[in-house]
Amino acid sequence: MGDRPISHRTFIIGVMGGHDSDPEAMNEALQLGEEIAKQGYMVLTGGGPGAMKAASEGAHRAGGLVIGILPNDRKRPLAGYPNEFVDIPIYTGMSDARNAINAKTPHVLIALKGGAGTLSEIALAIKAGTPVICLHSPGFTHPVARDVIVVNTVEEVMDAMDKILGNRKGSRS
Amino acid sequence: MGDRPISHRTFIIGVMGGHDSDPEAMNEALQLGEEIAKQGYMVLTGGGPGAMKAASEGAHRAGGLVIGILPNDRKRPLAGYPNEFVDIPIYTGMSDARNAINAKTPHVLIALKGGAGTLSEIALAIKAGTPVICLHSPGFTHPVARDVIVVNTVEEVMDAMDKILGNRKGSRS
Amino acid sequence: MGDRPISHRTFIIGVMGGHDSDPEAMNEALQLGEEIAKQGYMVLTGGGPGAMKAASEGAHRAGGLVIGILPNDRKRPLAGYPNEFVDIPIYTGMSDARNAINAKTPHVLIALKGGAGTLSEIALAIKAGTPVICLHSPGFTHPVARDVIVVNTVEEVMDAMDKILGNRKGSRS
Amino acid sequence: MGDRPISHRTFIIGVMGGHDSDPEAMNEALQLGEEIAKQGYMVLTGGGPGAMKAASEGAHRAGGLVIGILPNDRKRPLAGYPNEFVDIPIYTGMSDARNAINAKTPHVLIALKGGAGTLSEIALAIKAGTPVICLHSPGFTHPVARDVIVVNTVEEVMDAMDKILGNRKGSRS
Repeated sequence: MGDRPISHRTFIIGVMGGHDSDPEAMNEALQLGEEIAKQGYMVLTGGGPGAMKAASEGAHRAGGLVIGILPNDRKRPLAGYPNEFVDIPIYTGMSDARNAINAKTPHVLIALKGGAGTLSEIALAIKAGTPVICLHSPGFTHPVARDVIVVNTVEEVMDAMDKILGNRKGSRS
Repeated sequence: MGDRPISHRTFIIGVMGGHDSDPEAMNEALQLGEEIAKQGYMVLTGGGPGAMKAASEGAHRAGGLVIGILPNDRKRPLAGYPNEFVDIPIYTGMSDARNAINAKTPHVLIALKGGAGTLSEIALAIKAGTPVICLHSPGFTHPVARDVIVVNTVEEVMDAMDKILGNRKGSRS
Repeated sequence: MGDRPISHRTFIIGVMGGHDSDPEAMNEALQLGEEIAKQGYMVLTGGGPGAMKAASEGAHRAGGLVIGILPNDRKRPLAGYPNEFVDIPIYTGMSDARNAINAKTPHVLIALKGGAGTLSEIALAIKAGTPVICLHSPGFTHPVARDVIVVNTVEEVMDAMDKILGNRKGSRS
Repeated sequence: MGDRPISHRTFIIGVMGGHDSDPEAMNEALQLGEEIAKQGYMVLTGGGPGAMKAASEGAHRAGGLVIGILPNDRKRPLAGYPNEFVDIPIYTGMSDARNAINAKTPHVLIALKGGAGTLSEIALAIKAGTPVICLHSPGFTHPVARDVIVVNTVEEVMDAMDKILGNRKGSRS
């Protein structure tokens, strides 16, 4: 790994979505993973199948690093966790309580089509102050809705992310 | 405490809602706490101010036991946690990750008017298989919405709870 | 539950120990549970078998309330959790990460004979500032050892507990 | 990051130790971080000051990647967390409950001189089945002691690690 620059720290972008295989979310996740990695950012997911795997695969293809925040223990295997594109598997053993880590760690969280797990991650991210960009994610009503950015395409996600991160450059802690 | 019956175990009913003082939610929480305690059930909240405190006060008035799942440590005081009506303060030190405990522990979770925290607890409860009754709670869209019961009055909450618990008597583990 | 006094809040005493059936620890746990309940205090354990169950049974016999901080989810049964004497089962779904809650919640933690789990709870309690009384628990070396009270009998545990709690009366939050 | 090989996944080695500045532990941590990175492995610490920082600095100097499992939230700064050599800051917001993640995630955990926090991580690692190598760490008594490897030099740590990982090559999940 000696070729990389001295400063390894970069933005971490969370990509959340269902663990089942909705083709639309899978395709969006794949594209997003690739675009995020092309920016030199790391991708963070829940480390499992479905949209999590697709985002990881996209990032992997573009040479990016993928963090997976796993619900299980290393010694208690769980089907699909971690998926084969996770570079950095973080074993929490905390089941859904790990969704709080998914929500708190990224500089920006992107929510795709998903179910209750994705919805919990959106809500916990809002609580934590993590900016949330929703692309065909589960929706919700006032007053929470004002706290997220809703877009319709992968390109719009990347534009919104740029604006958020542009305001933060220089403070990547 | 020697007067209580041999078997102390009873149903635990979660009441979730905002930590600020929305009068409608506060009043509903107070009534619900009282009704739940009258049934002989325990009330579980996040242990803090607002609707959490009101539900606890209602239960307390009716002689019920109140569990508070606190985000802080005993040694790191947090304003309003636990509120004065919490009988059993559980210190997690886990911040919002404790919302998963709020969602998993109750036999039924009642969601009142609230914000992102309440929304996360609804979502985590659905994931955990805890039945959810929504009374003026944050709403959300398909497909998650099919997994909760939406009602409009405290009386309807109690009716829905009865139906759920009636199906479970004898298996209170 | 209407016979109990207005103020339900009392001291919570943690009893930690192995989940296997060491007869000495089981007997000490049973006696401790009973003595703690006779003082009107609640017993908190990890909610499982072995010393956890024995302490719970002792408290139950004396009419006390027993809190069990469970590693599993309600929907994912785990053999022996909760044991039959747990009145208040708190489902964390967090596996061993729940040991931090065991360590932080009690006003005093009593550590009996046990293994690595018990050792982790002693260590986390020291970190959290919870007073620790060791009765035949796993031992350890300087510098951590200075932070616990080591005794040899159940009677000595109760004496040490009295001294600790005597200094705290009036601040049971 | 395009220069790295297709497969980014490698062994993760945890280095645990005190957050204060014991010179011996600091020096051992620095050397260990460097040796681990030279093997191409990632270093994982609790992300803070003291031995955590020294291990991170050593790894950083040798071009390695450093994971920090942080007790705080990104929005609630904590002095010294993350230290400046953390490449991948994982924000848990879980205080000491995150010690379970420190214990579960690494393929091998190295425990240096430290206090109760380090002791908790040794104990949780034993529970989780993570191999533990102790170098001047807090010690403890039977029966837990049989579950760790105790050595006296950095060189012996690396030898013990090689033996453990040699038995695992090909199964790095």
